[in-house]
Amino acid sequence: MTAVITAFESSPDKGRGLARDMRVRWALEEVGQPYDVRLVSFAEMKQPAHRALQPFGQIPTYEEGDLALFETGAIIFHIAERSAGLLPGDANERARAIMWMFAALNTVEPPVVELEQAGYLAEDKPWLEELQTILEGRARARLSELSNSLGGAEWLEREFSAGDLMMVIVLRRAEGTGLVEEYPNLSAYVARAQARPAYRRAFAAQLAVFTDR
Amino acid sequence: MTAVITAFESSPDKGRGLARDMRVRWALEEVGQPYDVRLVSFAEMKQPAHRALQPFGQIPTYEEGDLALFETGAIIFHIAERSAGLLPGDANERARAIMWMFAALNTVEPPVVELEQAGYLAEDKPWLEELQTILEGRARARLSELSNSLGGAEWLEREFSAGDLMMVIVLRRAEGTGLVEEYPNLSAYVARAQARPAYRRAFAAQLAVFTDR
Repeated sequence: MTAVITAFESSPDKGRGLARDMRVRWALEEVGQPYDVRLVSFAEMKQPAHRALQPFGQIPTYEEGDLALFETGAIIFHIAERSAGLLPGDANERARAIMWMFAALNTVEPPVVELEQAGYLAEDKPWLEELQTILEGRARARLSELSNSLGGAEWLEREFSAGDLMMVIVLRRAEGTGLVEEYPNLSAYVARAQARPAYRRAFAAQLAVFTDR
Repeated sequence: MTAVITAFESSPDKGRGLARDMRVRWALEEVGQPYDVRLVSFAEMKQPAHRALQPFGQIPTYEEGDLALFETGAIIFHIAERSAGLLPGDANERARAIMWMFAALNTVEPPVVELEQAGYLAEDKPWLEELQTILEGRARARLSELSNSLGGAEWLEREFSAGDLMMVIVLRRAEGTGLVEEYPNLSAYVARAQARPAYRRAFAAQLAVFTDR
């Protein structure tokens, strides 16, 4: 039974790979699991049929036989748990890889997304710039700590894992702010991940939604 | 080997159970795993010794033999995976319980914490109230969706899991905003979880850090 994920019919990022289906596609490519995609419009995402799958009206979802999941962390963990390639075999190394998935989603992503969202939540406010300066300071502090932790290593732990996949995708969300570029080891880390064949295949697949029209 | 967690020597919440060690203590109590606590000061949390364990300079951490973890999601998942009581045995139900852990940490917690943090990040700004109104609207939208998803059920899925534990703790972070109280089913859900013996033991243990002085 081939898994089916949902993705934006018309992603606001126009295929730059910043929508959340990209991370799931990448995970599927890393483990070599085939998948189908069902595209949904913004209007459909807010309808009861989609909300029955995703109560918060977002993409992606993941359906496979009797199982329906949302939340990219959970979807990727599910994929990673059943196939080799995204989680180490050693129990302690596996726990640390899972730890980095949570760190990406709960410690690094929130300040990055908060900064991004200020631009449209408060876009017409005279104090937008002042708010953005404050939020930029917070995001920078987190990235600085992450940069120190990564140091000169290739990946967050001994080998590439779902933790790196999630962290790299979260760092990409800061594109355009110039924040990641302040830390050359983080820029290099993102570039290293983007050079992976599985990343490239996933990127091409999500871009094709736009270019194949 | 008894696991050791870290907690605030002097928590800013004065023992109201809002610091992040509470959720780990609760998980440990649910599965009946004994643990030790090492208290750290704010100054110590920012030192290299603690940052080697927790690169972002926060609590809690979890140490057990050769394994050192941070991120409450990862710590609780590690605890839940090795003992009965926090994750269902059925594979699909287990995946859904893990999904709710991620939903709590990546979908519900960010807008709740963002609203809370505005109060001190922008405390001296004339536009603070305007910002809080915007952020309150966002947090309310998420809670409304969560309330619709929970409906009249006792727990998020068929039985109590680590997903409920995390969601309830995240909802407690909204205390004082009045937002959870707008949804009677969410209030009742939080109260139901707080009545669990394991919750009560964990709450008493973190409070004792203050009252036993």
